[in-house]
Amino acid sequence: MNTGDIVWILVSSALVWLMTPGLALFYGGLANRNFASNTVFLSVIVLGIAPLVWVICGYSLAFSGHGLLIGNFKHFLLHGLTYNHSTFGLHIPDAAYMLFQGMFAIITVAIITGSVVGRMNLKAMLLFIPLWLILVYAPLAHMVWGGGILQRMGALDFAGGDVVHISSGISGLTLAILVGRRHRFSSETDTPDNMSNVLIGAALLWFGWFGFNSGSALTINATAILAFINTNIAAAAALTTWFLLDFIKTGKARISAALSGGLVGLVVITPAAGFVTPSSAIIMGILVAPIVYYLADFLQTKFKYDDTLDAFNFHGIGGIVGGILTALFATKDYHGILATGSLKQLGIQLLAIIITIALAAGMTTLIAKLINLWLPLRIPADIERKGIDHELHGEYISMLSSPQFNQHVRAKQKL
Amino acid sequence: MNTGDIVWILVSSALVWLMTPGLALFYGGLANRNFASNTVFLSVIVLGIAPLVWVICGYSLAFSGHGLLIGNFKHFLLHGLTYNHSTFGLHIPDAAYMLFQGMFAIITVAIITGSVVGRMNLKAMLLFIPLWLILVYAPLAHMVWGGGILQRMGALDFAGGDVVHISSGISGLTLAILVGRRHRFSSETDTPDNMSNVLIGAALLWFGWFGFNSGSALTINATAILAFINTNIAAAAALTTWFLLDFIKTGKARISAALSGGLVGLVVITPAAGFVTPSSAIIMGILVAPIVYYLADFLQTKFKYDDTLDAFNFHGIGGIVGGILTALFATKDYHGILATGSLKQLGIQLLAIIITIALAAGMTTLIAKLINLWLPLRIPADIERKGIDHELHGEYISMLSSPQFNQHVRAKQKL
Amino acid sequence: MNTGDIVWILVSSALVWLMTPGLALFYGGLANRNFASNTVFLSVIVLGIAPLVWVICGYSLAFSGHGLLIGNFKHFLLHGLTYNHSTFGLHIPDAAYMLFQGMFAIITVAIITGSVVGRMNLKAMLLFIPLWLILVYAPLAHMVWGGGILQRMGALDFAGGDVVHISSGISGLTLAILVGRRHRFSSETDTPDNMSNVLIGAALLWFGWFGFNSGSALTINATAILAFINTNIAAAAALTTWFLLDFIKTGKARISAALSGGLVGLVVITPAAGFVTPSSAIIMGILVAPIVYYLADFLQTKFKYDDTLDAFNFHGIGGIVGGILTALFATKDYHGILATGSLKQLGIQLLAIIITIALAAGMTTLIAKLINLWLPLRIPADIERKGIDHELHGEYISMLSSPQFNQHVRAKQKL
Repeated sequence: MNTGDIVWILVSSALVWLMTPGLALFYGGLANRNFASNTVFLSVIVLGIAPLVWVICGYSLAFSGHGLLIGNFKHFLLHGLTYNHSTFGLHIPDAAYMLFQGMFAIITVAIITGSVVGRMNLKAMLLFIPLWLILVYAPLAHMVWGGGILQRMGALDFAGGDVVHISSGISGLTLAILVGRRHRFSSETDTPDNMSNVLIGAALLWFGWFGFNSGSALTINATAILAFINTNIAAAAALTTWFLLDFIKTGKARISAALSGGLVGLVVITPAAGFVTPSSAIIMGILVAPIVYYLADFLQTKFKYDDTLDAFNFHGIGGIVGGILTALFATKDYHGILATGSLKQLGIQLLAIIITIALAAGMTTLIAKLINLWLPLRIPADIERKGIDHELHGEYISMLSSPQFNQHVRAKQKL
Repeated sequence: MNTGDIVWILVSSALVWLMTPGLALFYGGLANRNFASNTVFLSVIVLGIAPLVWVICGYSLAFSGHGLLIGNFKHFLLHGLTYNHSTFGLHIPDAAYMLFQGMFAIITVAIITGSVVGRMNLKAMLLFIPLWLILVYAPLAHMVWGGGILQRMGALDFAGGDVVHISSGISGLTLAILVGRRHRFSSETDTPDNMSNVLIGAALLWFGWFGFNSGSALTINATAILAFINTNIAAAAALTTWFLLDFIKTGKARISAALSGGLVGLVVITPAAGFVTPSSAIIMGILVAPIVYYLADFLQTKFKYDDTLDAFNFHGIGGIVGGILTALFATKDYHGILATGSLKQLGIQLLAIIITIALAAGMTTLIAKLINLWLPLRIPADIERKGIDHELHGEYISMLSSPQFNQHVRAKQKL
Repeated sequence: MNTGDIVWILVSSALVWLMTPGLALFYGGLANRNFASNTVFLSVIVLGIAPLVWVICGYSLAFSGHGLLIGNFKHFLLHGLTYNHSTFGLHIPDAAYMLFQGMFAIITVAIITGSVVGRMNLKAMLLFIPLWLILVYAPLAHMVWGGGILQRMGALDFAGGDVVHISSGISGLTLAILVGRRHRFSSETDTPDNMSNVLIGAALLWFGWFGFNSGSALTINATAILAFINTNIAAAAALTTWFLLDFIKTGKARISAALSGGLVGLVVITPAAGFVTPSSAIIMGILVAPIVYYLADFLQTKFKYDDTLDAFNFHGIGGIVGGILTALFATKDYHGILATGSLKQLGIQLLAIIITIALAAGMTTLIAKLINLWLPLRIPADIERKGIDHELHGEYISMLSSPQFNQHVRAKQKL
């Protein structure tokens, strides 16, 4: 065991952890002021629930046994976890691997919540989070990274295009359809409530993504360096491209557009980060921006789904584009195993994407239907109308919604 | 010297540094809008004063000599500090150890300020900070980690339950009593001024705490990994438990409650992080939540102390609970030296806690009385009534208190 | 190759990256509410453009060939970059060095934008950014760190006093003069729009600066530890000194003053971080505070330049003071090569500063004049009057400028 490898995994674990508060801020800043607190709360509560699920059984179900689809309960409550050597032949002890992988589970389920903010029944969500981690995340992590079927097929997913982005994006869309649109839904009405939080959140996400992608090398070597370089340059290319598209279309130089582009660039490079050259990373960033920009708009207009904070639009579409482009751009120059960039790899990637979509959509539907036997998925219409922040949370991330603010403004009038 | 060990200490030092700005945001966001700037300022000025005190004499007093109670001035202004090897038999050079330990001194004294915001005389506080570091922090660090009496007794304090949390919590409470309650004190009137800052601050604290606890292994090994895992899982368990308690009691799903729970979980695991199993860490997180939740409320209602931002409630009570539970849950499975979880260890832990409380309360009283010979501890009543932010700071973290905001609102009225 | 060295460079790269979002927040928080979004946007767009320029040709122009003034296109689009060993005789592979150095390019050009916010034509700026990186940054990095003339002369610049701070400060001032003052310019009218963002931004800058300075050791050794210690202690000394100066002058304990002091301390220690003792770092922090505090005020009052967010005042003046003090305080105790602290070194440092100033001022003028052949440097007066945020960006970091806010306030009046 080399100490440098372990340090990089611990650092990367901390960085990936920080992405979830970053997401809370990014989502919360973009959200409408009536459900900004609800949006933030759903990411915050995931910081509590997801690590518990992971330690109790999620890790074990993802990384034990030799099944094609899912692991077993061998490491229930981390039983038998090794702290000094790797049972997977990695350069880091199993305990460090468990820690790092657990941070991915947190951010993945937090991404989903963005699709249903402002209207989903909290108790139903508190059940959905652990069930989704056990029935979707753990099997998928097992299939892609834990020796399961997608890994055996040779699917390339460097840091979680399938496991994190497609799975959360598709699950978000599925849940958004099952829960239904907001009553006042219209694609035009959403003004970001807090642009400062959008900026801080995007910064923490991007910063954390360095650990997410580069840490996925699971050792300090050329691949880790390459993945870091590619992460930043793909994000930079997509930021610039998205800004230009939006500037040409709207005539406005919007901070939120530039940052959205950056994040979509981070999504697209995720499955490819350690497999492609920096030049390819630039091209991937340039390509993903118009695809997500126009396709998300087209799909949302056509199908009128209410993917409130773009979990599907950014992570789902971006992840699918990334998975396909990985097949086209992966090169054996940067790793020893795969000689790709071939049509065969493209077929494998497409199959992996289809399996991921089927699992995420199917299981999310099943979980939601199961919960719905007992609990409504949605809050009552009058609570949604009055604003979930006021009725359910009693706390206000959004200043304009805070009673303190409104009383103050009214008091000033009387002066 | 292994480079991985040194990197982890440098990273951890940066992470622990970030906790103090995080505390400024967390405290400042929770504070009443009349003293939000005062709250932030007191943490910011600590970022200036504490490192100077540490480099000049704090480190030397904590980590030199063989005294039972305190070190000496051998390393005055870092004289004789080694940069290439350890004189303590550690895996990191003394200079890296000095750096890391100095970050702990900063956050510890910053925690205290939360108990007396909005009413303490700034000049008195500017004297209190260095005196407290010299007369409380340095001796305590010496006693627990520098070869002093508590270390010789066998007290377990992995990352600073006694040195950081109990000492700051008790000192905060002592100072709050000596300075007195706010004039408009009532436990009901405090509405968080800025929930975004509460979230950002809590996120930076939690993120930094990974370095605080895991870095305290002082090397990269199984214990460092274990401490990281335990830190996150104890926080997650306490977050979830505290949220549930608060949700059941208030009917509201409050972000501030969830985050407060997470922070109390981080406090409780601090003395134990490298000594207990992850399952024990979960139990510690679940246990500490109701104890602090109900006991703080009970004590504050009964004794009507004005521990304004819960320095005592969270760090004091949480730290004491952590010290006791460390005795109950520590196991020799994860480290080679101690075979604990015994009644004897419980006695040692209790004695260490009592000594810490006595030192913190006694010395804080002495320092405050000394300062009071020359300066009032408290600002004049009329300044407190008008708001310390306006009178002393002339700058507004709180938008509602800013003249710019109020002029703008009045101007809008006339349109 | 030692894994610890590589990890530290990757961590430091992430930390330096975070400084640019930090700068966006710091600058944006201090900016007037009419151009707060413009201010943030200019740093955000740099996150997209600068890495592209760096990867395409910036790195190659800075770090290839044996020229005195500039490199060549050998590493165009990272062609021939090594991922496994160093062609410079460093402890890290060229790819890691490229990554780390690229983060410096981002923050440097972002600093410049602070001098011209609220009035510069966006299209002109979008041209200026890549041209400046190619014609000023790359040559200067080559001259100081890539084997060029200043390095051969023996100029000391540990982490970028010349390359980053003087170059950006002087370029900012030059551009501010060429673009001209804001129409409503007066040194009195600027109230910080968002003190929370000032605090968050300063915290991220300081945190990132640990990687900026300590990472510049390019290996994990005594120098890296020393640079980290010096970075924090110089900032602490300058924070405390600046606060005291400002408190004595204004009678107010301002958060922005303390944080500004901290940042100026970070600037001054940048060229010296690995060359001076911690005691010298304290003295440098104490000395730079009054120099910048009074000199910036004097110069700005006398010459009435509109260095809107103090890029010149802080980075230019601070960097020059740092370069000079490096000559006076550098010691051979902490590194093996240089025996300095001599008059000769002072001459070399002054010459390096003069060359940096000449290059930055001359080339910035040339670039601006060239752009001006095609595009106006400045937005039309009526757009500036109406506010660039409203006219160009259509998005509001500043709440008071947001239509959403103003409609809400007016609606409340009618209740």
